[in-house]
Amino acid sequence: MDTFEDLGFAKIDHHRKKRKGFPEVIYCAGKTPEQIAKIAKKIAQKKHAVLATRADKKSFLAVKKTLPKAKYYAEANIIIIGQLKKIPKGTVAIVSAGTSDQKVAEEAAVTAEFLGLKVTRFYDVGVAGIHRLTQNINKINKNRIIIVVAGMEGALPSVVGGLVDKPIIAVPTSVGYGSSFKGLSALLTMMNSCAPGVAVVNIDNGFGSAVMSYSILRSMASSPSPSGRGGKRG
Amino acid sequence: MDTFEDLGFAKIDHHRKKRKGFPEVIYCAGKTPEQIAKIAKKIAQKKHAVLATRADKKSFLAVKKTLPKAKYYAEANIIIIGQLKKIPKGTVAIVSAGTSDQKVAEEAAVTAEFLGLKVTRFYDVGVAGIHRLTQNINKINKNRIIIVVAGMEGALPSVVGGLVDKPIIAVPTSVGYGSSFKGLSALLTMMNSCAPGVAVVNIDNGFGSAVMSYSILRSMASSPSPSGRGGKRG
Amino acid sequence: MDTFEDLGFAKIDHHRKKRKGFPEVIYCAGKTPEQIAKIAKKIAQKKHAVLATRADKKSFLAVKKTLPKAKYYAEANIIIIGQLKKIPKGTVAIVSAGTSDQKVAEEAAVTAEFLGLKVTRFYDVGVAGIHRLTQNINKINKNRIIIVVAGMEGALPSVVGGLVDKPIIAVPTSVGYGSSFKGLSALLTMMNSCAPGVAVVNIDNGFGSAVMSYSILRSMASSPSPSGRGGKRG
Amino acid sequence: MDTFEDLGFAKIDHHRKKRKGFPEVIYCAGKTPEQIAKIAKKIAQKKHAVLATRADKKSFLAVKKTLPKAKYYAEANIIIIGQLKKIPKGTVAIVSAGTSDQKVAEEAAVTAEFLGLKVTRFYDVGVAGIHRLTQNINKINKNRIIIVVAGMEGALPSVVGGLVDKPIIAVPTSVGYGSSFKGLSALLTMMNSCAPGVAVVNIDNGFGSAVMSYSILRSMASSPSPSGRGGKRG
Amino acid sequence: MDTFEDLGFAKIDHHRKKRKGFPEVIYCAGKTPEQIAKIAKKIAQKKHAVLATRADKKSFLAVKKTLPKAKYYAEANIIIIGQLKKIPKGTVAIVSAGTSDQKVAEEAAVTAEFLGLKVTRFYDVGVAGIHRLTQNINKINKNRIIIVVAGMEGALPSVVGGLVDKPIIAVPTSVGYGSSFKGLSALLTMMNSCAPGVAVVNIDNGFGSAVMSYSILRSMASSPSPSGRGGKRG
Amino acid sequence: MDTFEDLGFAKIDHHRKKRKGFPEVIYCAGKTPEQIAKIAKKIAQKKHAVLATRADKKSFLAVKKTLPKAKYYAEANIIIIGQLKKIPKGTVAIVSAGTSDQKVAEEAAVTAEFLGLKVTRFYDVGVAGIHRLTQNINKINKNRIIIVVAGMEGALPSVVGGLVDKPIIAVPTSVGYGSSFKGLSALLTMMNSCAPGVAVVNIDNGFGSAVMSYSILRSMASSPSPSGRGGKRG
Amino acid sequence: MDTFEDLGFAKIDHHRKKRKGFPEVIYCAGKTPEQIAKIAKKIAQKKHAVLATRADKKSFLAVKKTLPKAKYYAEANIIIIGQLKKIPKGTVAIVSAGTSDQKVAEEAAVTAEFLGLKVTRFYDVGVAGIHRLTQNINKINKNRIIIVVAGMEGALPSVVGGLVDKPIIAVPTSVGYGSSFKGLSALLTMMNSCAPGVAVVNIDNGFGSAVMSYSILRSMASSPSPSGRGGKRG
Amino acid sequence: MDTFEDLGFAKIDHHRKKRKGFPEVIYCAGKTPEQIAKIAKKIAQKKHAVLATRADKKSFLAVKKTLPKAKYYAEANIIIIGQLKKIPKGTVAIVSAGTSDQKVAEEAAVTAEFLGLKVTRFYDVGVAGIHRLTQNINKINKNRIIIVVAGMEGALPSVVGGLVDKPIIAVPTSVGYGSSFKGLSALLTMMNSCAPGVAVVNIDNGFGSAVMSYSILRSMASSPSPSGRGGKRG
Repeated sequence: MDTFEDLGFAKIDHHRKKRKGFPEVIYCAGKTPEQIAKIAKKIAQKKHAVLATRADKKSFLAVKKTLPKAKYYAEANIIIIGQLKKIPKGTVAIVSAGTSDQKVAEEAAVTAEFLGLKVTRFYDVGVAGIHRLTQNINKINKNRIIIVVAGMEGALPSVVGGLVDKPIIAVPTSVGYGSSFKGLSALLTMMNSCAPGVAVVNIDNGFGSAVMSYSILRSMASSPSPSGRGGKRG
Repeated sequence: MDTFEDLGFAKIDHHRKKRKGFPEVIYCAGKTPEQIAKIAKKIAQKKHAVLATRADKKSFLAVKKTLPKAKYYAEANIIIIGQLKKIPKGTVAIVSAGTSDQKVAEEAAVTAEFLGLKVTRFYDVGVAGIHRLTQNINKINKNRIIIVVAGMEGALPSVVGGLVDKPIIAVPTSVGYGSSFKGLSALLTMMNSCAPGVAVVNIDNGFGSAVMSYSILRSMASSPSPSGRGGKRG
Repeated sequence: MDTFEDLGFAKIDHHRKKRKGFPEVIYCAGKTPEQIAKIAKKIAQKKHAVLATRADKKSFLAVKKTLPKAKYYAEANIIIIGQLKKIPKGTVAIVSAGTSDQKVAEEAAVTAEFLGLKVTRFYDVGVAGIHRLTQNINKINKNRIIIVVAGMEGALPSVVGGLVDKPIIAVPTSVGYGSSFKGLSALLTMMNSCAPGVAVVNIDNGFGSAVMSYSILRSMASSPSPSGRGGKRG
Repeated sequence: MDTFEDLGFAKIDHHRKKRKGFPEVIYCAGKTPEQIAKIAKKIAQKKHAVLATRADKKSFLAVKKTLPKAKYYAEANIIIIGQLKKIPKGTVAIVSAGTSDQKVAEEAAVTAEFLGLKVTRFYDVGVAGIHRLTQNINKINKNRIIIVVAGMEGALPSVVGGLVDKPIIAVPTSVGYGSSFKGLSALLTMMNSCAPGVAVVNIDNGFGSAVMSYSILRSMASSPSPSGRGGKRG
Repeated sequence: MDTFEDLGFAKIDHHRKKRKGFPEVIYCAGKTPEQIAKIAKKIAQKKHAVLATRADKKSFLAVKKTLPKAKYYAEANIIIIGQLKKIPKGTVAIVSAGTSDQKVAEEAAVTAEFLGLKVTRFYDVGVAGIHRLTQNINKINKNRIIIVVAGMEGALPSVVGGLVDKPIIAVPTSVGYGSSFKGLSALLTMMNSCAPGVAVVNIDNGFGSAVMSYSILRSMASSPSPSGRGGKRG
Repeated sequence: MDTFEDLGFAKIDHHRKKRKGFPEVIYCAGKTPEQIAKIAKKIAQKKHAVLATRADKKSFLAVKKTLPKAKYYAEANIIIIGQLKKIPKGTVAIVSAGTSDQKVAEEAAVTAEFLGLKVTRFYDVGVAGIHRLTQNINKINKNRIIIVVAGMEGALPSVVGGLVDKPIIAVPTSVGYGSSFKGLSALLTMMNSCAPGVAVVNIDNGFGSAVMSYSILRSMASSPSPSGRGGKRG
Repeated sequence: MDTFEDLGFAKIDHHRKKRKGFPEVIYCAGKTPEQIAKIAKKIAQKKHAVLATRADKKSFLAVKKTLPKAKYYAEANIIIIGQLKKIPKGTVAIVSAGTSDQKVAEEAAVTAEFLGLKVTRFYDVGVAGIHRLTQNINKINKNRIIIVVAGMEGALPSVVGGLVDKPIIAVPTSVGYGSSFKGLSALLTMMNSCAPGVAVVNIDNGFGSAVMSYSILRSMASSPSPSGRGGKRG
Repeated sequence: MDTFEDLGFAKIDHHRKKRKGFPEVIYCAGKTPEQIAKIAKKIAQKKHAVLATRADKKSFLAVKKTLPKAKYYAEANIIIIGQLKKIPKGTVAIVSAGTSDQKVAEEAAVTAEFLGLKVTRFYDVGVAGIHRLTQNINKINKNRIIIVVAGMEGALPSVVGGLVDKPIIAVPTSVGYGSSFKGLSALLTMMNSCAPGVAVVNIDNGFGSAVMSYSILRSMASSPSPSGRGGKRG
């Protein structure tokens, strides 16, 4: 019965760290600064690190009042207190197509760093000027996982996928206009990628791509037995 | 009153050659072999070359009975009698992504050749193995217009567009499955292409891409006066 | 390694002029006035002409502070510094259906003029009063390329396409209401046009239609050899 | 209680003639030839004329066995026995865009004739060769109502609407391919028509356009009093 | 050449009255109050009555400054100066489902009255309380045309259509939430109506339904010859 | 571990009767006659009644070979062996709009009877002839739950909902053509119903509407205590 | 003629209580505070309880001026005056997935309580931390009806449906982003639920789910005769 | 120039094994048995293992004639010759919701085994009977990657995601009917999953989920240096 805590407007899942490897994350959209601050405090009291996404400046100030160590990453719209411990060999490349995709890419990058991953950023290397990509492709391929963020036509994951041998997590963004239909075009492009080794998360879901990467790298970093999970986790 | 001819089930637009530069084309889908043969005969009697698209074998045999010079291009599903005169400098590259896109690419190629263009084919050079494309990119760029045919995620026009300085006519195909939604995914990708100099025709409309190319190349090949059409045409 | 310049938030593709014939364009949506001014300055320092689209007044003022020669085309939402050299015989007609489509038509017109094309405007000649179109059709057909801009039902390109023998680049606009679904209706109409010689760009993409025209006219104006690009370009 | 008759699998609405001016119509899709024959017989027994739409040859033969006066209109897929009495001044033009739209146009024409209207057909006058339309426009405008049938981009009603002063009932057809999406493109075009005096019925619903015309013409032909219906009708 | 007048930002179609029976209407969305006032003045100078739809208060004040006789119908968002002459027997019922559909219903009603029709309003008689409809059905059916306005599920035209013998023009509205998708649900319902004698105009297009009614009633009121239009019009 | 049985290609949920009140149902689409027969046998061996939906004749014959008591309801495409015990006061009206909706209505009716409910059928009472509905409305309202099945525009549940005071379960069907989009139109209509007391199941899901009714009636028939479930059930 | 009252802008259906068991509800979206206050007063004058949904603070203040007993439920956006009498055994569980779904859940809860039902709330028990659900499942299943409210992927009703034997009314919410398409994703998930005994209401329609529950529980609580409704109601 | 081989109808990418770790795969849909056999032979001649997906029996027989070691997996529609070498610790669980999803699950399983992974199958454990899942959850979680295959509402990945700490690759299937829209419903559900650590591949793309798993496990199994790829690969 003590696996979650009831604040009335939310049941905080303190057990999640045990179950999933990291504590409950605060998704700020639709919550008041006061609610966010209250939840952040409850999580921090359990000695868990705190991650709050889609947070505006005002919410950050409310959190900072209670938890003075809170840091704000404005471009990523993320509030952070503390950090998970490093994942060994947990390297991730974050590749983005254009300047306008940068917010989503930063949500992925800041989340991944919070989760203990080592992030290298490769921004503004979209297919319109493909030499910017090819000049960096070897460095990109040195990471264990590649997150590719792109809006408009969303072709970048297919192109990267044809050049590297690492798994790609594709993030469509709502950047574009007209028939981009707020990211639907990029989403469909990525779902239909003819390059092997590509899987997709929701439109603008930089956070999700980072958690998927964390989930993969943590699974791999675990106990040597090929057929079991280590006892320390879960 | 003699600009068209009324067959009852169709009014043949004999005036079109004057107006558009080439005679009425027979779109065979939904017409019986007999109707197709009758229209083909009427066009041929006016000394016009004949092009019939989306034609099956049976329709070809019906046409051949009346017009023994008829030729059938099975992969393109096209019947042809005669040919328009060559367009000077009318070079077109037809680039296709995969083996399954070939039917649409052939519809474009055979139509373009009928219209007097010089076609070079670059098939199966999709983004999954991008070296097949880059090894050919200089040859592709030597043509005045580039038609790019692709299904699934439809990323190829964006990638070609980033590498060449020629206009690209993009043809989405209905090749794919699942969320490709019969070509919708490729269509949206191409509409949203971030590469400059790309325009799009309907799904599987190889014919349309060839006519667009013809229309461009004929417009350019025309009279030297920058502000008028030559008197011979139209 | 000097083909692009890294501003942190953007990698400017200085090599694009070589590759595509014109320098990188600034798409202002989602960028701050400061970012826009900084990118504009970097491009201008390379002695390249500058084109910035979807720019509001505020961005223009920021650019003008650094680059006093900057000009603002309010209806087109475009900032321009300098201009590309004229394309010989580079004539384009810009035909628009209604008063409300004018912003998109102007984006096309101002961009085309920047790129060195000779533009003639034919505005407010939609199909509801078709005599306004037919009285102008001969003048329209005297241009080498025809850009047709239309919202609502988007029928204008089909009608123009039935009357001229020049290639048509169709631009659907988001003008309309109800089941126009922000331009989707016009886009589908144009994709399905039964008139030959029509290709389509994205909803509201006046810029794209101008670049496609430029790409065509520059390709045609190039070296006399039918099978190669001139050495000076590219 | 005698206003309808219960056949078990159908309740025949004998009262409809009173209420709507014409007897219940048999929509054959999804019914067996036997069911169709049985319903036709019951309607005929009430001395009502019979109209059965979407009927194949087999259904016709089943009906003919019981009702030897039944006639079959193969292109319209309609079975008819008898006819309603003529509507004075009940003239309708049926205008269709292409040969492939003819089935739907014939469903409209045969239904309208059954309902007592005087039909003039203008087929294959689509916008790709607009002179075929303009040469006929005065004859078309001599009718009291104009039904316009078109598939693909569905632009014809807008163009006709710009040239005539009669009400237009637009019928989108499922003719087309690719992004025509089985008539959706034509439907949206017609809904968004910028020409005044256009209303739309369902995709391929030639029958519905005829009944709408009948409903209008019968309403107008009724009693001289401006503020009431004649007592004889339902 | 004097059939339209060029204001630079608009070509006013003075010929429309001849061609369609009523002068050009000003669609105000996307136009500035100044542009609207200028167009209104030009139309009024030709001794034509003026109708401006989707007009806000500010536009009305701008028009009133030049044309002091201008009247504003706030609920309909319409500005009117003058009126067309009465259509004999031109009776229209306007039936609306709920209070929230009233704006669209008023756009239809005010437009119809401007065009010379006699309008009777039946508001708030939706299917949720069907006795409000059935108590009025005889009065509704005394009109020659019935306009039915409904949002949400849009079932009202089907129900009215089952009870009357007059033609119905159905207007879907964008009233609703969730899966009503801004009127799409109501539009599809009306397109698929199983009641005979129903045709549909665009979402929220009260204006269009009035013009369609006018077009029908004027066509019927015209010359006695069953096979021609009167010489004075058109 | 004995709560389900593993057939290799299926895990039969024998525990479901305990949990949900009725045994696992066989959804036959996509299963071979042999697989269906094998699953049916396993369920029957546990002394459970058997219900198999979407079953063709061939599957029935395969089942009958092993289980000779199997009965086939051809119109409903259902195989049944045995029956659940009667639910006291478990009365359900099944109301359908047209003859073509009957298959779905029968799937609902046969399933409901299998589950122990008392079904009264009211077929072919759609809104096009609303008197067929109003004459039956009192009998319909005497049941505790009303299932309403309708395709095309799907308006029937709204109309019934305005006339009765019983809960309505609405079943959209894929009957229709053109813009009915295989039931989407009817589904949206029902979701947006302005009548209170309507909930919706999937397109063509007659089975689901019956199970929902059963679930309601069984819940109501249970133990007298207002705040608990009886011990005998699940 | 006294079954409804005409306020000009609305016809109040005073008869509804007789017909449906509860008085007309005020849907405030799109109505002015004054209109709302006027309708509320008219309903209250008939000695009916008043329920107004989608009401903001301002509307509440307008109502309170006339009807001082009015109470406002801010999270549910509901105004209430009075209450219906208790339904015996009328227990409903309201289960919601996340904090952001709470507004819709509260609209359901407050409406249900107004209608005389006994509500137990189970909030923030979504599938991401399924132990929060399973710990409460027995308490949830003690109610006669279960309303499940969920946005994003909307999986909660399927999961609850697999664990309980009570009828479930599923309410999709517009909570989510990207490809949730304002509730469409959750709606489709719930429509396709493989769990038996689930029916769905419109996106964000908490009100509708409460009325459906009321309708069910009132139907069950009525007269003992299995084949009739009590004479007092309806 | 020897990195691919040109068969005329296909360019085989022999270099892919170097670049991506496994040889080109034959996607059989739309290819003739003869083409498939020819490509298979060419790949086999390079000493590469062969995988052909979406292959029917006929294609298998054509391949077997040339390559007698070919094996056919009928349920997966896959032809295989040879196998890649085992990936150490490369364990994958394949979890499927229902019997009808099995084909897609088998495509994933057979592909994964071909690529050298160790697969454990957990079939028919959908949310309708959630105890079948929970009894297996520990065994499922012992694998390094979990592929979850589900059609209809597609809720299974969210539920599994709430219970395990391993990365999940979700595969929507086209299993379902009505508003499942051939897998769109399941796809949207999975994209919007509120469980962390879920990424999605295309509808019915069992192959893609296996390649993504392979790509992950191979990346993890590679060289010990945290910041580089081993020299032998790529």
